[in-house]
Amino acid sequence: MAARPGGHNLAVMNGPKEKVLTLDTMNACVKRVEYAVRGPIVLRALELEQELRQGVKKPFTEVLALCVHPDLLNSPDFPEDAKRRAESILQACGGHSLGAYSNSSGIQPIREHVAQYIQRRDGGIPADPNNIFLSTGASDAIVTVLKLLVAGEGRCRTGVLIPIPQYPLYSAALAELNAVQVDYYLDEDRAWALDVAELRRALCQARGHCRPRALCIINPGNPTGQVQTRECIEAVIRFAFEEQLFLMADEVYQDNVYAEGSQFHSFKKVLMEMGPPYSTQQELASFHSISKGYMGECGLRGGYVEVVNMDPAVQQQMQKMMSVRLCPPLPGQAVLDMVVSPPEPSDPSFTQFQAEKQAVLADLAAKAKLTEKVFNAVPGIRCNPVQGAMYSFPRIELPPRAIQRAKELGLAPDMFFCLRLLEETGICVVPGSGFGQREGTYHFRMTILPAAEKLRPLLEKLSQFHAKFTREYS
Amino acid sequence: MAARPGGHNLAVMNGPKEKVLTLDTMNACVKRVEYAVRGPIVLRALELEQELRQGVKKPFTEVLALCVHPDLLNSPDFPEDAKRRAESILQACGGHSLGAYSNSSGIQPIREHVAQYIQRRDGGIPADPNNIFLSTGASDAIVTVLKLLVAGEGRCRTGVLIPIPQYPLYSAALAELNAVQVDYYLDEDRAWALDVAELRRALCQARGHCRPRALCIINPGNPTGQVQTRECIEAVIRFAFEEQLFLMADEVYQDNVYAEGSQFHSFKKVLMEMGPPYSTQQELASFHSISKGYMGECGLRGGYVEVVNMDPAVQQQMQKMMSVRLCPPLPGQAVLDMVVSPPEPSDPSFTQFQAEKQAVLADLAAKAKLTEKVFNAVPGIRCNPVQGAMYSFPRIELPPRAIQRAKELGLAPDMFFCLRLLEETGICVVPGSGFGQREGTYHFRMTILPAAEKLRPLLEKLSQFHAKFTREYS
Repeated sequence: MAARPGGHNLAVMNGPKEKVLTLDTMNACVKRVEYAVRGPIVLRALELEQELRQGVKKPFTEVLALCVHPDLLNSPDFPEDAKRRAESILQACGGHSLGAYSNSSGIQPIREHVAQYIQRRDGGIPADPNNIFLSTGASDAIVTVLKLLVAGEGRCRTGVLIPIPQYPLYSAALAELNAVQVDYYLDEDRAWALDVAELRRALCQARGHCRPRALCIINPGNPTGQVQTRECIEAVIRFAFEEQLFLMADEVYQDNVYAEGSQFHSFKKVLMEMGPPYSTQQELASFHSISKGYMGECGLRGGYVEVVNMDPAVQQQMQKMMSVRLCPPLPGQAVLDMVVSPPEPSDPSFTQFQAEKQAVLADLAAKAKLTEKVFNAVPGIRCNPVQGAMYSFPRIELPPRAIQRAKELGLAPDMFFCLRLLEETGICVVPGSGFGQREGTYHFRMTILPAAEKLRPLLEKLSQFHAKFTREYS
Repeated sequence: MAARPGGHNLAVMNGPKEKVLTLDTMNACVKRVEYAVRGPIVLRALELEQELRQGVKKPFTEVLALCVHPDLLNSPDFPEDAKRRAESILQACGGHSLGAYSNSSGIQPIREHVAQYIQRRDGGIPADPNNIFLSTGASDAIVTVLKLLVAGEGRCRTGVLIPIPQYPLYSAALAELNAVQVDYYLDEDRAWALDVAELRRALCQARGHCRPRALCIINPGNPTGQVQTRECIEAVIRFAFEEQLFLMADEVYQDNVYAEGSQFHSFKKVLMEMGPPYSTQQELASFHSISKGYMGECGLRGGYVEVVNMDPAVQQQMQKMMSVRLCPPLPGQAVLDMVVSPPEPSDPSFTQFQAEKQAVLADLAAKAKLTEKVFNAVPGIRCNPVQGAMYSFPRIELPPRAIQRAKELGLAPDMFFCLRLLEETGICVVPGSGFGQREGTYHFRMTILPAAEKLRPLLEKLSQFHAKFTREYS
């Protein structure tokens, strides 16, 4: 192409032009996205999270190895039930291989196994495989459902109720989608319980400036570690029904319940047991993942959503959206299959599997208790029981001079605390401000995943640092 | 919660209420999304696509098996170079395992290997690992970059130029993001070549009602199979520079070039060789995938984007967006590592790898030629040479009465043809209307992936069906 006279080529001559994409001209919604869990402060947390990876992984990795390299099906080194399992997964795959695209909603027999898992979990209440969509981790499915809900402009913009504190995927996705985040506060004084009166307050207040259409629940709670009672769940369902809210139940920690007296109740089960009109009309999406539980296979990115009472036309639209990304990663689908149909008593791997699963969960339970105990022995730190999930979210008192100093540095006070902690002790925790908290309160989120012999010194070091920090700024 | 008197509980009594989410109230952008490639007609195409899966896969699956189940590192059945490779990948993983989250941008050593691959590919022009972001297949990265570009309202809404025919990920993503799709037509009479005059026409026309900010190129072309010349790429870069357009180069078929005289030139290489101001200022994102080439590991969902001359502040925002989804699936990252650093001449696997890679590519080249030859022997079908990628996109003549009949049925004429073809022959091809085509022309996309001994009868059966269909409606 020859150079053209006039305007355009001046740019070529006259030195640097402005970029097409700058902070000023880029998608403003993207700029508003915040995601504390992957901020600079948590790079090291990744390392800690690895500690979960022990024991029970072997049956999974054996089957996955057989799936990715089927030559191994002839090897005498693998147990027969692992081979049968791998063979059945491969049978369901196009070209007998994990390397091919699957159906966009996931491999059909795996959707069926998920339905059977849900049915067992929910005491026999049926689940329909056609209402189950496999996903790239739970995050992917959560964003897809939120996407469907977004509509309207100005005062009719979609509002979505989310708990505070929350897992920041929600605030990030709502910012990106230009929906209105409607905060309801969990009650720290009642071990982070959800209170329907507070839901109602948040809803009424929001109705002035947006159109609330969905209610997100995280149970067991991230970062709170709270496990909801059956009564609470019933009340939430009644509320959602009366107020015409689509329910989104983030239940990725359903296998992680430790506290005595606490038990996981799925929203689906409670909804169905409440009978009509709830069971026949209340819209619900429930999310699960292979990244948590006792398996922690987060790197493989597997999960699913089950939808209940969704308008079939909308469900078709959801399926279409999932198809644009072709399919969820096959290794994640394969491991989901193993998670939802673990070895049975007659299988050679059963005893080992059960023993290792119990060991992992018992270990987590012990660490949950240890965390609460150590923190609550420290003046200025108060930690609710870690009933479930994988985190403690203790409240910390910070001296006014530290708060002042943080403000001078342009930092949230708990971010300032966490940065100092990281610098002086190497311990990496995420400041509460990334999850949301009541004005004037400060927290951090710490995982209970480190091995017990490492966790105790970590907790003690952290407590000592808090004392030192408090003295320094008093 | 006790039942409350008054308004809300009436809903409970008075039978079915309206759903929160209906076709009328859902996200209108989602409804506008269309994605022909995964429409009902292509369910069977998935099966065909499996045929690629042969030969060269073994070195990949061996290493992947070693990575997912490291116990195998002690097995004598795996070659030493596969073990070394697996060990080096695992070294870079948190907890020495593919089951853990990685850095959101991907495992650092793999980003470095991608940079080295690009540098080799581009004759030594350097690539910076920090400009490379691993992704869940190329689709994921393409949508992320489009997301950054979306801004403005009304006549200032972002416009994005895309080729027609296009791969429908682009139209789907633009619809979802509420951006304006600006069509530029590829020239069927010149083997689907891109013409800068046509780009200019499309741009000028679009400027009346939106703000065009980006230009998407698919090279080698999907569905066209066209491979762009170096001259064409230079002209496109000059055009983008003069018109201030961000360049998005979808280069996922870079290993799939078959025609004599055709050669893949990366946009990055041409841009850099053009020197300043282009090389120092033109913004570019180039996408690649493990789903195509000679490996076809689509089920593992792996890919990457390299960004060039991107505003560092925007690049940080991009990294943030990627972190919200935590990380790309680890097995896809591991296989990307193998794709970008294949066995070297000194490795035990080298000879077998080279032989199988060459065999797969030679086979595809033969099938590309066969497709063109068979179709062009049929009256009423005209097929451009399949210079690259994995598809033919022949033009078909349809008799006026068939077009009339399709309209009565509410179908696009080529959709009607493809549905009849599927019913009567079991052959599944995607109608051209899903990719876009000039008004009044009709096409379909067919993959060249089936094994040669199956492809020839398929092509002949399809040709015979076209003749029969034409007679029937004449």
